[in-house]
Amino acid sequence: MEKRYLFTPGPTPVPPAVLAAGAEPIVHHRGADFREIYASVLGQLQAVFRTEADVLLFTASGTGAMESAPANLCAPDDRVTVVSHGSFGERWLAICEQHRLDVHAIRYEWGERPDPSEVGSAVRAAGTRIVFCQHSDTSTGVVSDVEAIKEAVGDATLVVDAVSSLGAVPLETDAWGIDVVVSGSQKALMAPPGLAMVSVPEHVLAKVKPSRSFYFDWLRNKKAQDALDAAFTPAVSTIRSLDVALGLLLEQGLPAAFDRHLRLGRATRAGVKAMGLELFSPDDDTAAVVTAVRAPEGIDADELLRHLRDRHGVTLAPGQQHLKGKIFRIGHIGWFDIFDIASAVAAVELSLTELGADIERGAAVPAAFEAFERPTVGA
Amino acid sequence: MEKRYLFTPGPTPVPPAVLAAGAEPIVHHRGADFREIYASVLGQLQAVFRTEADVLLFTASGTGAMESAPANLCAPDDRVTVVSHGSFGERWLAICEQHRLDVHAIRYEWGERPDPSEVGSAVRAAGTRIVFCQHSDTSTGVVSDVEAIKEAVGDATLVVDAVSSLGAVPLETDAWGIDVVVSGSQKALMAPPGLAMVSVPEHVLAKVKPSRSFYFDWLRNKKAQDALDAAFTPAVSTIRSLDVALGLLLEQGLPAAFDRHLRLGRATRAGVKAMGLELFSPDDDTAAVVTAVRAPEGIDADELLRHLRDRHGVTLAPGQQHLKGKIFRIGHIGWFDIFDIASAVAAVELSLTELGADIERGAAVPAAFEAFERPTVGA
Repeated sequence: MEKRYLFTPGPTPVPPAVLAAGAEPIVHHRGADFREIYASVLGQLQAVFRTEADVLLFTASGTGAMESAPANLCAPDDRVTVVSHGSFGERWLAICEQHRLDVHAIRYEWGERPDPSEVGSAVRAAGTRIVFCQHSDTSTGVVSDVEAIKEAVGDATLVVDAVSSLGAVPLETDAWGIDVVVSGSQKALMAPPGLAMVSVPEHVLAKVKPSRSFYFDWLRNKKAQDALDAAFTPAVSTIRSLDVALGLLLEQGLPAAFDRHLRLGRATRAGVKAMGLELFSPDDDTAAVVTAVRAPEGIDADELLRHLRDRHGVTLAPGQQHLKGKIFRIGHIGWFDIFDIASAVAAVELSLTELGADIERGAAVPAAFEAFERPTVGA
Repeated sequence: MEKRYLFTPGPTPVPPAVLAAGAEPIVHHRGADFREIYASVLGQLQAVFRTEADVLLFTASGTGAMESAPANLCAPDDRVTVVSHGSFGERWLAICEQHRLDVHAIRYEWGERPDPSEVGSAVRAAGTRIVFCQHSDTSTGVVSDVEAIKEAVGDATLVVDAVSSLGAVPLETDAWGIDVVVSGSQKALMAPPGLAMVSVPEHVLAKVKPSRSFYFDWLRNKKAQDALDAAFTPAVSTIRSLDVALGLLLEQGLPAAFDRHLRLGRATRAGVKAMGLELFSPDDDTAAVVTAVRAPEGIDADELLRHLRDRHGVTLAPGQQHLKGKIFRIGHIGWFDIFDIASAVAAVELSLTELGADIERGAAVPAAFEAFERPTVGA
């Protein structure tokens, strides 16, 4: 009977029609009924990725699709650059190191935004031809300027992790010349976890090395997908869900989705600041994906999260690695509206009060509503 | 409005309660609600795998879990043996070749059953320490005697693909000393596709080499699973489904499931033979997973399948590779009962008649019922 509230930056809440589609009877992955869904989902993915390139769809978590990039583009000892400013930048590093690449890391403090010209200089100095970075690092809420990073790295192949950003903030894959974009089903795409994607244009496919993964082999998967005949039994039910979710997203339109995320981020920041808390994620409109907040003096963020969950059925996300216990994160990716933000900040306010923190009562929810309604500049 | 009938050997039909569980609102993979489901599913997997070993659960197709074995157990140029007698044996070969292993193949005709003592001799002659084989090769309906194969290969590490057999026919992982067993959610486990598993006991974990896959790294995944904290965002909805499905299977009991599959296989064979068709899969009780049938003279099996699907909404599976057009396959893995078999053979009988084949009318369904009811010897 107890209600549950999921305000995490992935997996994210999923609309009822998307859940219902996943509960349809199973279809065979090589039959006509599925091929129709498969063609639809692949076409809709291209529209959301803003690309004419193939978007390869894997039954896997986002990390699997991330790994597919070095597995297909690199051989051991190849020199690559990784831009890291959070937990998922560290994941690029760990993947590249496990593939025994010659990894040059450009490390920023967690919460800092990479400087595109610094990245460009470092890539030129190291002479690397492949660069891995995040569009949004979910661990900190920082969204990078990948358009400027691509400009700065020139004709090096840029591989962008857009798992938490695709569909939430603008990403013009083709127009910005981003070579490879990785994403996942369970964030702004509003579907259950279990599917990951990677956009790979012809000029990148022309450069692949013998894949060191059979399952994530780009050429094998592309060939199968081109014939609408998945290489391996795909998660047909989750693909049905994703197809419905992408339809909802594209029906609303990407510009409307981006504007909503921007205003949800603004509302969340206004709410948490109004109760006297300090932001960890940037205090500007780039932070439209997830809001990271410092726990107030004397409060352990993980204790706050346990209290929220056990006492009130509300799930927020913790800080990762060295930020554990110090920050908490409110997701606003995908199927979120202003009442979710109001509930989230109200629950934080109530729980902090119950835990004895000295915070402002009653200001957060009105501040969130006010900030949400404020017109976007230029809109 | 048109009804659909899925009689394929994977993905297989899924019980309504299993579908409904997958449509529950999304839970966070690091929260208490999910950890309870995760602990339950991992425990139930051990019960179905008949092992005390860790069963690693991956968000992937079965092929991903297959690949995890050479990726964790082998280094390039390691000598391995692959026993192949169908499409999935060829998959082991392709995976091992992509991993640049020194592959010794023992190839049987598709539809033949491997001879354990031949396998043992070949493994000793080649001096290999790792052997890959199928328990059931879904492409032919042949189920191997993996207990005898393990005896024959002695202390070489035996890796068994049980994707289509686990839960359908007996597989005593620990009692038979099978070192590594691979399976998937979408066959006899009666859940949607999207999850794959591999059982890895301590004595095998002690032998792993540096994993050439980050995503499928056994040690990384085991460490995370031990803490009920999945290494990467898992397919939480499909895991909920799998948990319910395994509960149904274990509630019925594995012996009852094995007996049901045996009798479904017997009924299918009796039905197709009664209408005058010739079996491709073995005509004995080992063929309890899938029944492969030769198309009658003058009929292309793929044309029969198109007719069944387009005219009657019935999906069977085609022959693969060189068997394409020559055979068709009726699955009876997982959530199947005798009325499914009656419908499948009746649909084949009707369609063949409509296509002008000279077959016996009216005999198949009674023969299937009669064979299903015949008591199992020793039961």
